[in-house]
Amino acid sequence: MRIGGAGEHGGFRTLTILSVSKLTDVPKRILIGRALRSDKLGETLLPKRIALPVFASDPLSSVAYAPGEVLLVLSVAGLSAYHFSPWIALAVVVLMFTVVASYRQNVHAYPSGGGDYEVANTNLGPKAGLTVASALLVDYVLTVAVSISSGIENLGSAIPFVVEHKVACAVGVIVLLTLMNLRGVKESGSLFAIPTYVFVAGVFIMIAWGAYQGIVLDETMKAPTADFEIKAEHEGLAGFALVFLLLRAFSSGCAALTGVEAISNGVPAFRKPKSKNAATTLALMGGLAVTMFCGIIFLAMATDVRMAEKPAEDLLHNGVPVGEGYVQDPVISQVAAAVFGDGTFFFVVLAAATALVLFLAANTAYNGFPLLGSILAQDRYLPRQLHTRGDRLTFSNGIVLLAGAAALLVWVYGADSTRLIQLYIVGVFVSFTLSQIGMVRHWNRHLKSEREPAKRRHMIRSRAINAFGAFFTGLVLVVVLATKFTHGAWVALLGMVIFYGTMTAIRRHYDSVSAEIAAAEERPDEYVRPSRVRSIVLVSKLHKPTLRALAYAKLMHANELEALTVNVDPVEVKALKEEWERRGINVPLKILDSPYREITRPVIEYVKSIRRESPRDAVSVYIPEYVVGHWYEHLLHNQSALRLKGRLLFTPGVMVTSVPYQLQSSEAAKKRARKRQEWNAPGSVRRGPVEKGQKEPAAKNNR
Amino acid sequence: MRIGGAGEHGGFRTLTILSVSKLTDVPKRILIGRALRSDKLGETLLPKRIALPVFASDPLSSVAYAPGEVLLVLSVAGLSAYHFSPWIALAVVVLMFTVVASYRQNVHAYPSGGGDYEVANTNLGPKAGLTVASALLVDYVLTVAVSISSGIENLGSAIPFVVEHKVACAVGVIVLLTLMNLRGVKESGSLFAIPTYVFVAGVFIMIAWGAYQGIVLDETMKAPTADFEIKAEHEGLAGFALVFLLLRAFSSGCAALTGVEAISNGVPAFRKPKSKNAATTLALMGGLAVTMFCGIIFLAMATDVRMAEKPAEDLLHNGVPVGEGYVQDPVISQVAAAVFGDGTFFFVVLAAATALVLFLAANTAYNGFPLLGSILAQDRYLPRQLHTRGDRLTFSNGIVLLAGAAALLVWVYGADSTRLIQLYIVGVFVSFTLSQIGMVRHWNRHLKSEREPAKRRHMIRSRAINAFGAFFTGLVLVVVLATKFTHGAWVALLGMVIFYGTMTAIRRHYDSVSAEIAAAEERPDEYVRPSRVRSIVLVSKLHKPTLRALAYAKLMHANELEALTVNVDPVEVKALKEEWERRGINVPLKILDSPYREITRPVIEYVKSIRRESPRDAVSVYIPEYVVGHWYEHLLHNQSALRLKGRLLFTPGVMVTSVPYQLQSSEAAKKRARKRQEWNAPGSVRRGPVEKGQKEPAAKNNR
Repeated sequence: MRIGGAGEHGGFRTLTILSVSKLTDVPKRILIGRALRSDKLGETLLPKRIALPVFASDPLSSVAYAPGEVLLVLSVAGLSAYHFSPWIALAVVVLMFTVVASYRQNVHAYPSGGGDYEVANTNLGPKAGLTVASALLVDYVLTVAVSISSGIENLGSAIPFVVEHKVACAVGVIVLLTLMNLRGVKESGSLFAIPTYVFVAGVFIMIAWGAYQGIVLDETMKAPTADFEIKAEHEGLAGFALVFLLLRAFSSGCAALTGVEAISNGVPAFRKPKSKNAATTLALMGGLAVTMFCGIIFLAMATDVRMAEKPAEDLLHNGVPVGEGYVQDPVISQVAAAVFGDGTFFFVVLAAATALVLFLAANTAYNGFPLLGSILAQDRYLPRQLHTRGDRLTFSNGIVLLAGAAALLVWVYGADSTRLIQLYIVGVFVSFTLSQIGMVRHWNRHLKSEREPAKRRHMIRSRAINAFGAFFTGLVLVVVLATKFTHGAWVALLGMVIFYGTMTAIRRHYDSVSAEIAAAEERPDEYVRPSRVRSIVLVSKLHKPTLRALAYAKLMHANELEALTVNVDPVEVKALKEEWERRGINVPLKILDSPYREITRPVIEYVKSIRRESPRDAVSVYIPEYVVGHWYEHLLHNQSALRLKGRLLFTPGVMVTSVPYQLQSSEAAKKRARKRQEWNAPGSVRRGPVEKGQKEPAAKNNR
Repeated sequence: MRIGGAGEHGGFRTLTILSVSKLTDVPKRILIGRALRSDKLGETLLPKRIALPVFASDPLSSVAYAPGEVLLVLSVAGLSAYHFSPWIALAVVVLMFTVVASYRQNVHAYPSGGGDYEVANTNLGPKAGLTVASALLVDYVLTVAVSISSGIENLGSAIPFVVEHKVACAVGVIVLLTLMNLRGVKESGSLFAIPTYVFVAGVFIMIAWGAYQGIVLDETMKAPTADFEIKAEHEGLAGFALVFLLLRAFSSGCAALTGVEAISNGVPAFRKPKSKNAATTLALMGGLAVTMFCGIIFLAMATDVRMAEKPAEDLLHNGVPVGEGYVQDPVISQVAAAVFGDGTFFFVVLAAATALVLFLAANTAYNGFPLLGSILAQDRYLPRQLHTRGDRLTFSNGIVLLAGAAALLVWVYGADSTRLIQLYIVGVFVSFTLSQIGMVRHWNRHLKSEREPAKRRHMIRSRAINAFGAFFTGLVLVVVLATKFTHGAWVALLGMVIFYGTMTAIRRHYDSVSAEIAAAEERPDEYVRPSRVRSIVLVSKLHKPTLRALAYAKLMHANELEALTVNVDPVEVKALKEEWERRGINVPLKILDSPYREITRPVIEYVKSIRRESPRDAVSVYIPEYVVGHWYEHLLHNQSALRLKGRLLFTPGVMVTSVPYQLQSSEAAKKRARKRQEWNAPGSVRRGPVEKGQKEPAAKNNR
């Protein structure tokens, strides 16, 4: 029999639409929204033109803050240090090319979506894998914090109110994104595509228009801060100190590289040929990112943008510090003001698109976090239910954790992207480095067995790329740690340690349980199989639920069957007994005495006495249960049954059967449950569907 | 077979002691305390000398505030009105005798502990019964609020700090009592006896000593306020206005009568002959209360106690108002200061005993509230589990509700007993009146059938007493409502309406469910009995829990048996299938496809398809369940199983069997569950044990 087929789906869908169209749960609906059909999930795999904005909004958006951070750090040594910025840009470009080239190898070798975690886990062992995972989890938190803070700053360059209430606005956006993702909105290609393409187009037009004006028309464009002077914190820096400063500036510039790994986690979401399309998208993304990054640095130099690490003190206007009230606009908005003019239509559009892309970049973390969680859950580092769909509670907990941590950081650091960036990148480069080292091992292993010369050549080439990648990213990691540790990178490391510890503990728990319940190899059925069953039906009154439970219990052909009631009220018990006889129910009714009106204890002790009497008998307890529709009805029903059930589960050799009786009101709960089921887990688009029929045909009956 | 006997109890007790001696749950233990053995509950029924303090602390303690309230109201018409106070005391005494005489009839006629509610319900119908119940519930809240506020004021006469932080202290005592009762401390006779007897003895010594000094030694005793003057708010009040004032004073004096009904609710807790002992205790209590009440009024007159309704303005010292800073001590403490001397040993002991008795009176409400709740639950006006023991949650909710409402009142009324008393008494007199009217009807009914002259005479006498009681208490109710409605009685009425509405709604719900599930009279088994059973064992992996579930399912001889797994991970499913074959498990394994990694939906749809195929088959689903010991382990296990179970219960024709597998960690939860079971529900002493063997012999097996 084929189950779950189209016909049934059709029927179910009709029911669902009916239930959704009724206006129940109004407050929750308004807040969390209507659930979407899960069988639409991944109905279409992503074409490259959609995959690019979905996966690349994070790295592309980082050009909104990375160039500024470079200038900011250089300003410490005074305006003269600005001349190093093209060299730093060049270094970032080389790094970007290296990383992109390396990851193109990854997506070909590991198309399953495990990304850096899988690569490190497979090739370097579980500890390396878990380190990468912890690093990435921390990085997701920081992606949210940094992207939203930067988005708020960009929005603020057009709308002053936003900058004046920076922290509140940033937290507001976090809350909004969180609600959106709890609601289960599917990552939609078009939602991502429009602002991302507007942003990319805007930046390119700006660069082109700036180049045209500057080079062809030879006009002087002046940034709003062009007339400012910079007071060097350390004048005439040279030797080691200068190198250290340049390395710090480079570290900040590396923020442009965050999010590159997203594509390698999302390979299953691409159309076929998945790996090739992913690699192409990766190259496209790298090309766009470096062009935009360099273009903005170039324009910033051309328009004399001035940024300082401590603008209040070190930025001078007519020789006087600008003071606390001064708001330092992001470099992209200063450049836009110089090229398009402050407040012009293009300026505002670009600011809005920049902010939007940055918020989308934050949303990327909301999707990447559960995606990684799902893979970690598969390896039992996180609760198992993150791997399957549908446990909204667990997913929600993860999202709330992510949002809470990000909001905390935003609040502690005053939504200041410059300060938050000090924490950033550590995680990314930990995972870059470990992943590339893993890839080198991967090729080494494969080279051992591969004999075909063409493939060997290819592998050797790939290994060289990954080896260079490992070397370079490792170097950057050392630089980042050295230059940023005291500036805040320690916070990121602490976060990594916490994630690592938690996940290790969860894995240890699962392992110990797994060892406890592992089935013995020999005669598996023997040791747990009891010889007979005694069935007991719990009875309080003679009504339909009881009669149904009795009828069901009879069907099961137990060796013995009896009904059991507890005497908490002599009058009621007498009435029950009389009705029992009057109806001629052919099941013996046992009455337990309970002088203190307890229900649980007499039943438990009776069951225990049966088990003691004949330890090889299993006891099957049937509990008639009302199925109700509202929480307050739960308070009025089933309490004794539930408590008893909970206690019986602790008694070995007992199985507990709920025989439900659906009250009319249960329809409401049924509808709610269905709606809940149709929730879209964040990250599910990136994860792609299970490779259907890859190893098992559908609904195969293995008789 | 005899079950629940001594031997088994012994074994269970040993286990319990072991589990309790382990120091788990430390924080909770400190707060809520160690649970007590429930089979000690009601081990001894109460002798009269213990029953008196347990049941009478409420009415006896009210002499601590009632006399003062009388003077307070009279002061409105100036000092001259104080001369009416003996007349008012006389009226209260007459009322007390009437009420006591009436209730002596009640306890003889209704020894089951249903009290006023039962009397009104039986004789006047459910609406009257529910009105009485609502009134009593409101009164319990007010007993807590008034007694604790007054206790704080009495304590404050010895310890000024307490009066300075009245509200905080009062709320603190409420919290303390609440925790005590949540903890499940048994109402202990000796705990009640000592302070109550110290209080009674102290008041009698004070009266005797005062009388001896005043009459025999002819010394002048002067209360601390003897030199104060009272500015009459309404000088020279006469005619209707004066009568109204006197009636208001009388209403306040009636506070001495609250709690009289407690004995009629507690008859089952008395030793045999229960009714006679209860009636004697009632008479004793009445005698003590009126003697103390009159004695204190008499001493207050003799020592020139001056109290004013608004002391700050109307109490003059040397012609000047005493002002806001002045604290008006309770009359009992002023009298004690006059007789024993302020701050002397006797004074402090009496103040402490008074406060303690008042707190015990409040505790009485904590026990009376669930007791009444239990009776209301039996009639399905409140959740059913209040009738049986053991649902700590429900009891706790009730207690927290009581405490919350009392604390709210204390806070709103600034822990001012004078203002709170305006709300009090309404409830008591509603229930007095309805109960007495009910008793008249009761005798009328019995007189119709009774032919024996001696019994008829007795009944006619009882009827006369109850009729007078009904008339008098009804009159008082009208007086109370007329004189106090705007002063706060409306709040009490509002509370009654809320309780009435809630209980009606609950009853309506139970009735509608009851009608829905009522078994048809004809061929009860027929319509619900399916013809065959198909058993399905849910499988995720092949481990001990799964093997146990398979073994149990096999025992049940279903018509068809299959194992079911959902393919959320092709690799795992492949491994499962291979192991299934390797182990040679002779149950067919069905694999459901789930492209989007859902578990619940494919299973539900499969079960539905079976039901559609053969609607007369029942489906029995076996779910292997881990039993774990800590909440965080729940997050890591069973989530899919629980969610699935919840959804299956909504599917008609399905029964769900949990086959538990007890992990080692489950021991912890088992112990916690046992401890929870040994909790003492508040009110259980008053309620007495079920009349064992009265109608049903213990553990009778009705085969």
